[in-house]
Amino acid sequence: MVLSDDSPPEAPELEVSRWFNTPSPLTLAGMRGEVVAIEAFQMLCPGCVLHGIPQAKRLHAAFGDELRVIGLHTVFEHHDAMQPVSLEAFLHEFGVGFPVGVDAHDEVGGPPVTMQRYGLRGTPSLVLVDRAGRVRFERLGQVDDLELGSHVTRLLDEAPPPTHGDP
Amino acid sequence: MVLSDDSPPEAPELEVSRWFNTPSPLTLAGMRGEVVAIEAFQMLCPGCVLHGIPQAKRLHAAFGDELRVIGLHTVFEHHDAMQPVSLEAFLHEFGVGFPVGVDAHDEVGGPPVTMQRYGLRGTPSLVLVDRAGRVRFERLGQVDDLELGSHVTRLLDEAPPPTHGDP
Amino acid sequence: MVLSDDSPPEAPELEVSRWFNTPSPLTLAGMRGEVVAIEAFQMLCPGCVLHGIPQAKRLHAAFGDELRVIGLHTVFEHHDAMQPVSLEAFLHEFGVGFPVGVDAHDEVGGPPVTMQRYGLRGTPSLVLVDRAGRVRFERLGQVDDLELGSHVTRLLDEAPPPTHGDP
Amino acid sequence: MVLSDDSPPEAPELEVSRWFNTPSPLTLAGMRGEVVAIEAFQMLCPGCVLHGIPQAKRLHAAFGDELRVIGLHTVFEHHDAMQPVSLEAFLHEFGVGFPVGVDAHDEVGGPPVTMQRYGLRGTPSLVLVDRAGRVRFERLGQVDDLELGSHVTRLLDEAPPPTHGDP
Repeated sequence: MVLSDDSPPEAPELEVSRWFNTPSPLTLAGMRGEVVAIEAFQMLCPGCVLHGIPQAKRLHAAFGDELRVIGLHTVFEHHDAMQPVSLEAFLHEFGVGFPVGVDAHDEVGGPPVTMQRYGLRGTPSLVLVDRAGRVRFERLGQVDDLELGSHVTRLLDEAPPPTHGDP
Repeated sequence: MVLSDDSPPEAPELEVSRWFNTPSPLTLAGMRGEVVAIEAFQMLCPGCVLHGIPQAKRLHAAFGDELRVIGLHTVFEHHDAMQPVSLEAFLHEFGVGFPVGVDAHDEVGGPPVTMQRYGLRGTPSLVLVDRAGRVRFERLGQVDDLELGSHVTRLLDEAPPPTHGDP
Repeated sequence: MVLSDDSPPEAPELEVSRWFNTPSPLTLAGMRGEVVAIEAFQMLCPGCVLHGIPQAKRLHAAFGDELRVIGLHTVFEHHDAMQPVSLEAFLHEFGVGFPVGVDAHDEVGGPPVTMQRYGLRGTPSLVLVDRAGRVRFERLGQVDDLELGSHVTRLLDEAPPPTHGDP
Repeated sequence: MVLSDDSPPEAPELEVSRWFNTPSPLTLAGMRGEVVAIEAFQMLCPGCVLHGIPQAKRLHAAFGDELRVIGLHTVFEHHDAMQPVSLEAFLHEFGVGFPVGVDAHDEVGGPPVTMQRYGLRGTPSLVLVDRAGRVRFERLGQVDDLELGSHVTRLLDEAPPPTHGDP
């Protein structure tokens, strides 16, 4: 249960068309220095509703402000069915309190931009980004809580990257 | 665990604006002589997604053609979020194969027509209609499977009502 | 979901070496006229602890005095590990309030007498006996609650058998 | 979610009358330098069977050889019901593969010796011992998997204590 740390890839920036549950838009660049858990989901995907979203809520509850938990609504099917107005009601009804961004589309239909940048194959997918802005974990489907608690903790305990301009 | 049979009320007719999973519209009048289970739900109601819909699917699987299982999409909140295009994707993704009707609205906002006729207080609600077209069971929230299996069976085992015109 | 009623076999009598949770020993002969659910289990069988016993408790709670729910401790392995002193603590700790009989052994080791009479292949097994003392249902492993509620109700709704000596 | 590290108490030595699943007896002294998770349980305690033991099995599966997972059978009630012959069958039937010790009694009845040394108030209780042989976590009842995965990881990532005799 060791996280990859051999030259992990830089985490691509988020491309979000609309945010919920945050007063201002979020960027990975702006969260550099923090550990970020990105839950990529679709509101009408059963695995997301039954497993992915509840686990993201548990992460948010267990780690609090130590960890940035973010939902990313990566709609790649049934586009008309999962518009922001429906997502907003979903987040309210299912008690999702952490920030959620709508992954942007650069063309009609098909997978959205951020999903493509990360090469995600479906939903739910969980991505962990370390303090240096690198992808250290990516998993499609169910993730074990013990394993996830371990991964997150290892990333939290890593030293922050040196600030640009430091001698 | 005895079903009420002291002058049970006549089941009000369904008022449906659109049907899914059925080649032609359904009416209680047309199903007279059969036992009907009506699962009133909203696609973004957690109790419906976690309990009501799975139980209706189990009813459908357990009793097959003996019992008419029908979903009724009774949207009384977040109306814009649960339009038919979203419901259609929901039914596909959550594997709902029984007929589902969209409860009609006679005015913008507020509870739909059939929901009002039955006096349902929320979702999920389960209604059982007997072979004579009378309401014999109505429950808001979770229903125990043993109890439900018993109720349905008692209704299935009742004699069909005499046909009009019989001597 | 129709119960067999083509010449169902007579239910063999219970052979019990010790009873718990009943002031006096029970016999099928003495319960003639009632519907009896027999949960055959072993206290150290995971399927019994996780599924069989909880379902028998649900049956007891749902049907109350209408149905006779009886546990039968059919030890056919690890005999020394599941002696009555251990069973008694198990029943207390797991909140089993219905009568439980220890299936008798006529020889050291091997399956007990009642288990053999019924031809049960393992635990948990559920047996339903009708008002006329006949076996109408027998299943090894998990049983669906909707189906079970239906079976029990059909048996409850059957007329009691004519009493011997009636004209 | 920070583990106490302000002068944590020395973990008392185990007092075990019999071991299962290990070729030779285990002592905390002999495991110094390793992180040890002690699952204190009783085989007829429902919370242990439903939560404690399954979680200990998940710990064993998730962390493998990195973590020493040990069961401690701390019988403080129903003593005659939970003798080693019954425990042995329990471990076999419930698939417990990690070492399990029977907590020793120094007098008939009452709580066993190790349980008293640790001041455990009931079962299941989970104790985490760090590489320096100190108690860093102790919890009665259910423990969240995310939180537990985090705690175990923090202890695994601590440096081993200096060896006696090192300059």
